[in-house]
Amino acid sequence: MKAFVESSHFRNFIMTLIVINAITLGLETYPYEGDWFTTWLPMLDRIIVGVFVVEIALKLIAYRHRFFLSGWNWFDLFVITVSVIPAAGSFSVLRALRIVRAFRLFSVMPDLRKVVEALLNAIPGMGAVIAVLGLMFYVSAVMATKLYGEAVPERFGTLGDSAFALFQVMTLEGWASDVAIPVMETHPWAWIFFVVFIVLTSFAVLNLFIAIIVDSLQSKHFDDEEARDAEADADREVLHTEIAGLRAEIAALTAVVQRSLGEAPSSSSSENAADKSE
Amino acid sequence: MKAFVESSHFRNFIMTLIVINAITLGLETYPYEGDWFTTWLPMLDRIIVGVFVVEIALKLIAYRHRFFLSGWNWFDLFVITVSVIPAAGSFSVLRALRIVRAFRLFSVMPDLRKVVEALLNAIPGMGAVIAVLGLMFYVSAVMATKLYGEAVPERFGTLGDSAFALFQVMTLEGWASDVAIPVMETHPWAWIFFVVFIVLTSFAVLNLFIAIIVDSLQSKHFDDEEARDAEADADREVLHTEIAGLRAEIAALTAVVQRSLGEAPSSSSSENAADKSE
Amino acid sequence: MKAFVESSHFRNFIMTLIVINAITLGLETYPYEGDWFTTWLPMLDRIIVGVFVVEIALKLIAYRHRFFLSGWNWFDLFVITVSVIPAAGSFSVLRALRIVRAFRLFSVMPDLRKVVEALLNAIPGMGAVIAVLGLMFYVSAVMATKLYGEAVPERFGTLGDSAFALFQVMTLEGWASDVAIPVMETHPWAWIFFVVFIVLTSFAVLNLFIAIIVDSLQSKHFDDEEARDAEADADREVLHTEIAGLRAEIAALTAVVQRSLGEAPSSSSSENAADKSE
Amino acid sequence: MKAFVESSHFRNFIMTLIVINAITLGLETYPYEGDWFTTWLPMLDRIIVGVFVVEIALKLIAYRHRFFLSGWNWFDLFVITVSVIPAAGSFSVLRALRIVRAFRLFSVMPDLRKVVEALLNAIPGMGAVIAVLGLMFYVSAVMATKLYGEAVPERFGTLGDSAFALFQVMTLEGWASDVAIPVMETHPWAWIFFVVFIVLTSFAVLNLFIAIIVDSLQSKHFDDEEARDAEADADREVLHTEIAGLRAEIAALTAVVQRSLGEAPSSSSSENAADKSE
Repeated sequence: MKAFVESSHFRNFIMTLIVINAITLGLETYPYEGDWFTTWLPMLDRIIVGVFVVEIALKLIAYRHRFFLSGWNWFDLFVITVSVIPAAGSFSVLRALRIVRAFRLFSVMPDLRKVVEALLNAIPGMGAVIAVLGLMFYVSAVMATKLYGEAVPERFGTLGDSAFALFQVMTLEGWASDVAIPVMETHPWAWIFFVVFIVLTSFAVLNLFIAIIVDSLQSKHFDDEEARDAEADADREVLHTEIAGLRAEIAALTAVVQRSLGEAPSSSSSENAADKSE
Repeated sequence: MKAFVESSHFRNFIMTLIVINAITLGLETYPYEGDWFTTWLPMLDRIIVGVFVVEIALKLIAYRHRFFLSGWNWFDLFVITVSVIPAAGSFSVLRALRIVRAFRLFSVMPDLRKVVEALLNAIPGMGAVIAVLGLMFYVSAVMATKLYGEAVPERFGTLGDSAFALFQVMTLEGWASDVAIPVMETHPWAWIFFVVFIVLTSFAVLNLFIAIIVDSLQSKHFDDEEARDAEADADREVLHTEIAGLRAEIAALTAVVQRSLGEAPSSSSSENAADKSE
Repeated sequence: MKAFVESSHFRNFIMTLIVINAITLGLETYPYEGDWFTTWLPMLDRIIVGVFVVEIALKLIAYRHRFFLSGWNWFDLFVITVSVIPAAGSFSVLRALRIVRAFRLFSVMPDLRKVVEALLNAIPGMGAVIAVLGLMFYVSAVMATKLYGEAVPERFGTLGDSAFALFQVMTLEGWASDVAIPVMETHPWAWIFFVVFIVLTSFAVLNLFIAIIVDSLQSKHFDDEEARDAEADADREVLHTEIAGLRAEIAALTAVVQRSLGEAPSSSSSENAADKSE
Repeated sequence: MKAFVESSHFRNFIMTLIVINAITLGLETYPYEGDWFTTWLPMLDRIIVGVFVVEIALKLIAYRHRFFLSGWNWFDLFVITVSVIPAAGSFSVLRALRIVRAFRLFSVMPDLRKVVEALLNAIPGMGAVIAVLGLMFYVSAVMATKLYGEAVPERFGTLGDSAFALFQVMTLEGWASDVAIPVMETHPWAWIFFVVFIVLTSFAVLNLFIAIIVDSLQSKHFDDEEARDAEADADREVLHTEIAGLRAEIAALTAVVQRSLGEAPSSSSSENAADKSE
């Protein structure tokens, strides 16, 4: 069973179904009318979902409790569950979410999977910077609501409005023409708030980026250096062994000479040697 | 006293109060009416400020003059002072600034503190580039005011207006549609000014970023290399010691041979050795 | 023939013609009237195209089937073919495409060629990230069409419209004022979709950039390290040879001593040496 | 004379004058009326220009023809010349250019000078990429003028208009709302042109940036590695000397033994040694 689930034929079959399903879900967005469009497309969709349900069931049987150890399996399970529910009701959001199934390609294609995993792995390292950025955001949103909420209620009326307006400012989109200049009509000094906010958040975001770049370089660099260090260590080991061999040979030679001359090791020569080696 | 102030229980207690206070200050932005909102929330706020005042007082007693050596303590002191003042008057700006207290999380949580300190440490290295950028900005603002102040007074009427307009241009937000194109209606060659300004400031900002990236990489890289160099040095030391030992042993052996043979070191053999070692 | 085609005189002649042609095609965009403009310019253009056709023919004769091994030759062939066709008809797009001939400078000037080849070489390494980005784009476009197609048909009416609107959002141009805010009038929660889309695509694009930066640094760094490693290896080789020489000399010396003393190698001294070398 | 011109007192005096002049030129932008403003400010300006003329004259006398070897001196000369001319006429552009004098701070303050020189030094390395970008720009401008010149004459009417519109598109400012969408009303496929242009220019600009980053890292890294290599080389030299010393000592010992035993070097032992060292 496990061998069947992991076979490349089975995976290619599922991959093809995901691609076909992504295309049919894309086609559904066109407002065509006709037998083909209103009858066959939804039916094909339902058949594919059925196959996906069977696939998950097979994997559950094959792996049992180990199925739940992989985050990708949880993702597949979630996507399929979402796909099965709206077949009953008619929530437009759930219908729209069905296309998320196409992301199953990430879990099926190893190349894409690696990229997504690399993106996810970058997140923990950014934790502290994101927390700092989040706090800056919250504080700025509260301040903006208090300061400009009455003057420009459509942008800074509530905490949520302010947060959205400040996110827009952070992306620099229309920060002056749409956000800052209307505020500056009643609060001429508001430019200080916006300029400081832009400089601080840009700086923080930049540091987020730099952290990722440095991490990527470090990890790659580190692997290289590890290999080089290991090689250098091995080489030094050889060198030390050879020198140890040399010393052993000289010691043997000294022993031969001394014994053949019938003389005990002289204390003066030992002292001499100790002197030099210090 | 110092042990109490530095205990993790005390710090967690203060941290919790900061978070609660940040939430209550956020809630205050909503225009709800009601006993709970107009009475209890401000009272909770006053209690928390009271605790913060006590905290600062305890720290002052515990550390005395050393309290003023840490920039974070100055920050705490400033934030609390600002919080105490508006309780009397009713300056809206000071009321809005109370949320800055939430930034005390930076001084309490070591992880966030490290990020903020890293950001602050990056500033001195950027000093010269920021000075160059500032001078470019000032010169451009004076030129823009002189050249376009009469034609487009709402954007370039005064030096301050020009500086704000040029900051907007530097962020690339609406630089063409909102700033350059209105100017170009009366001054068709104004595009030269704006294109040159954008290219120069982008280039300067880019170099600012690169300086930070290179610095970050260097400092991390440097630490690695230091460790590796130290290890390599230690290894070479061992090698030199071993070779010195070898030479000492050979010298001892030579002495043994010469003494036992009752012969003085011959000058010809020394010459021979000197020849080879050259 | 091949020597003539590869001669620097011939190349400079072709390069000059490409530059002249780029200028004349630029001049044609001005709506001047006059004999010079309507008669001589098109004639000059036709003559230059003729020379280019001859050039390609000469190269075909010179290199034969090897002509088709170089992508740059295919590019030249394509550009010339496009230039010859519209001389007959009057497709405005094909007429506009004639200026693409100026890109032949890339194939003629080695410096520019190297830059373009570097840009092209960077593409395969970005394959997986581009696939992830593309899938994110497709899924988002289908979702946006389903969710907001009815409310804002001019931006999200069809899959194509949605893709264009989302590309605009990805570049952050007017994402709030032109795209998100109109949608939020009917779907107040749409900000979640747009903020998540911006964060995810920015993050993916950033990783695309980092991948290129890391690759560039690695490849340059790698060459440096290769050279340094080779040097270090050569040096170690010398060291090992010298130590091997030492051992050989000591062995010779031991042999001399033992033979002259008429004694067989004693087992006790060998054991002693083995002890030390362990 | 040269000593006086290079003295720190003289430089500080000039630096102070530049700063004062920058401030007075900034003050002139305010439309204040009054004796102080209309009489004393221009007089102060004229006095400072006079001092600058004297400074340049002194430097010319001190350095003679070597004065013209430094690009910074040419810059000073140009700025002062521009300042002297408008005193006669009343060209508004030349009057506005007087503030460029403030850039003389770059030539006087070594820290700023270093930053500007670093920026200028980065330019040659970007030559080829800038040429590629420029050619892409020219070709795109010609194409856009031919394709969209009739439909949207105010943005793509002439080659110059197109170049400005495409520069705006390259900065991503209003590329969709102000440029692409108006064009797409008559040319629905125009999105291909703009999307391709954005992707290509972004990619080229990115590579420009990466080239600078890699260069900066390389040059810094290279210095480090040079130092480390030099140290490692010195260490190896010591090692080789020590081993050479060892060999010399062993040779001496062998000579002593052989001579004292009255025996000629045996050919068999030499062969033995040669065997091992191979």
